Amino acid sequence: MNAHSAKPYVIGLDLGGTNSVFGIVDSRGEIKATAAIKTQGYNTASAYVDAACAALEPIIEQVGGIEQIRAMGIGAPNANYYKGTIENAPNIQWAHNTVVPLADMFSQKLGVPVAMTNDANAAAIGEMTYGVARGMKNFIVLTLGTGVGSGIVLNGQLVYGSDGFAGELGHVIMRRDNGRLCGCGRKGCLETYCSATGVARTAREFLETTDQPSLLRNINPADITSYDVSVAAGQGDALAQQIYEFTGRMLGEACADFAVFASPEAFIFFGGLTKAGELLMEPIRRSYDECVMPVFKGKPQFLVSGLDGASAAVLGASAIGWDIK
Amino acid sequence: MNAHSAKPYVIGLDLGGTNSVFGIVDSRGEIKATAAIKTQGYNTASAYVDAACAALEPIIEQVGGIEQIRAMGIGAPNANYYKGTIENAPNIQWAHNTVVPLADMFSQKLGVPVAMTNDANAAAIGEMTYGVARGMKNFIVLTLGTGVGSGIVLNGQLVYGSDGFAGELGHVIMRRDNGRLCGCGRKGCLETYCSATGVARTAREFLETTDQPSLLRNINPADITSYDVSVAAGQGDALAQQIYEFTGRMLGEACADFAVFASPEAFIFFGGLTKAGELLMEPIRRSYDECVMPVFKGKPQFLVSGLDGASAAVLGASAIGWDIK
Repeated sequence: MNAHSAKPYVIGLDLGGTNSVFGIVDSRGEIKATAAIKTQGYNTASAYVDAACAALEPIIEQVGGIEQIRAMGIGAPNANYYKGTIENAPNIQWAHNTVVPLADMFSQKLGVPVAMTNDANAAAIGEMTYGVARGMKNFIVLTLGTGVGSGIVLNGQLVYGSDGFAGELGHVIMRRDNGRLCGCGRKGCLETYCSATGVARTAREFLETTDQPSLLRNINPADITSYDVSVAAGQGDALAQQIYEFTGRMLGEACADFAVFASPEAFIFFGGLTKAGELLMEPIRRSYDECVMPVFKGKPQFLVSGLDGASAAVLGASAIGWDIK
Repeated sequence: MNAHSAKPYVIGLDLGGTNSVFGIVDSRGEIKATAAIKTQGYNTASAYVDAACAALEPIIEQVGGIEQIRAMGIGAPNANYYKGTIENAPNIQWAHNTVVPLADMFSQKLGVPVAMTNDANAAAIGEMTYGVARGMKNFIVLTLGTGVGSGIVLNGQLVYGSDGFAGELGHVIMRRDNGRLCGCGRKGCLETYCSATGVARTAREFLETTDQPSLLRNINPADITSYDVSVAAGQGDALAQQIYEFTGRMLGEACADFAVFASPEAFIFFGGLTKAGELLMEPIRRSYDECVMPVFKGKPQFLVSGLDGASAAVLGASAIGWDIK
C-alpha cells in the first residue's frame, strides 16, 4: 500500500475575496464533502485559520478523520506559491499590507502538508484537469469575481514568474488618464472596471452622468450589484445593456494586449460575472477582433468555464495538494 | 564521427528591418565569418533570397564549402517558428500583407535544413546562451530597433504561444486615445513611441509643439534620427533629454504591465536605442517603480545587453540552427 492510497483525500480551499469554500476531494476529482466560511470579518489571520479549522472538523470526521487526509491545497489571492504566503492582498482585511504564512499556519493546525497558489492559478489547474482547457498547452483563465484574477498556462505549465506572483492580469492599466482608484493603490487597473464590483461602479457612474431611464434607478445606488445589472439587462433595460457592452469591450481590449504577449489558444472566463452569458461574451469577442494586432485576429477561442464556479477552484486547489512531494 | 562534428558550422541570419546580417558559427559560439545585405529594396522574397545567397557564397567557401554547414537559423520579424514562415511583417516590403515560406526557400537554395523564429526571440536565446541572462529562467528581452520586438522566457523556455507568434510586446497599446499610427494598422502601439523611429517621431512632435530652443532645430525635421537625439542629449540639450525622459517613462510603464503578467527576474534591453545608456535606463527604472503594482516594486533587474548588437542576434539565430533535429 503506497502513501497515496493510504491517505485517499486532499483538502481543497478556494479562498475568495468574499467566501472561503472547502472541499474534501478524492484522487479521481470527486468532492466528498464541503464546507464554507466568510473570508472577511476576522481581524487576524490566526482568527481566520481558527474559524476555518472549526468548519473543517466535521467534514474531516465525515471522511474518517485527519488520518485519511494526505495534504491541503489552497487557492488564494496574492498567494506566493514558492513561500506559501499571502502577501499584501488588497481585498482581504487580515492580509492587507502584511505577509501571512498561511500554508504553515494551516499545516501546524491540521498536521498535514499544505501548498498554496493564486486562486486564479488554482482555477486554471482546475480547467486544465477537469474543464474546457483539457488538452490545451497555452491558455489564459480570467476570473471575474470581487476582483479580476488570472491563471496563465504556457507550454503546458503555469506561469509563476521569478517570485511566484506572475499572472496578476487584473492589474494591467487600462486607463492611464482619470482611471478608477484600485485596491492596489494605483489607478485604472482592469479590475476596477471588469470585476463584479467594477460593474457596479460602472452602473453608478452611468446613472449619475446620464438622465437615461433605467430599472436600476429603482435601487439605492450604493446597493447596486452586478447581479442587479444582469437582471435588468435580461429584461431589456438599455442602460444595463450598455454597462455590459462597456465591460465586455474593455475585456476584449485587454485580451488583445494579452494576445501579443502569449498568443493563447483560448481565453477562459470564470466567476460570477460570466452568468451574464452572451451579454458579456459577445462584446468581448467583437472588441478583441476590432482591437487586436491583425496576426492574432479570430485565432483564440473565448470560452466560459464549463465547471461549476465553486467546484472548479476547489478542485484546482486540491490538485496542488496532490502535487506536494 | 557523429553528424555534429562532421558538419562543424551553422549559418545564423539576423534579419532586421534595415539590415540582414549573416554569421557562420561553430559549436562553441565563435563567429568564423560574416556578411551583410540590406533587408529592404527587393520587390519579392525570391529576389531577397537570391541576394542573400550571393552574399553567403564567398563566406561559405571561406569555411570549406556547404558540406561544412549543418543548418541555418534565422531570426526575423513576424516569423512563425512552427511553420518557418514570415507572415504580414509590416516593416518589410517583400513580406508586407503576405506569407513568405522563407525557411523552405533558403533550405531549397542552400540544401541545408533551416529553422526560423522572431528576431527578438533569437536575441533572447543569444542572451540566455552567451549574455546577461545566463542562468535566468524568467526574463524578457525588449529589442529597441526600427521597431520594438520582444523575446519572453518563462520557466526556462521561450514563449511561442499557440501559433508561434507570441511575444510581440512592441504592439501592446500604450495610448488608447490619439495614439500614433503604427505599421500594424492600429494606433498607440508601444513601438510607435519607443523604437528608434518612435524617438525620431517624438523629436519632431516636441519640436513642432514647443518653442523651446534645441540643437535639433539645426537639422531638417524629416532627417532627424534617434542617434541625433542621443548626441544632442549628450551635449546637454534639454529638449533632447526630455525626449529620452518621455521614451524611458513609457518603457517603464509598459514594463510595469509586463511584470503583472510574467514577474520576470530581469528586463533586458537590446538594440540601437540602448546606446543612450542612463539617459534611457534611468527614467525606465524610475517610471517602472512609480507605475508598478506594489508587490513587483524594486524586484526585476533592468539590464542592457552585454553582447555586441549584431553578434547577439546572429548567435541566437545560430542556436536555433543547432537545435534542428
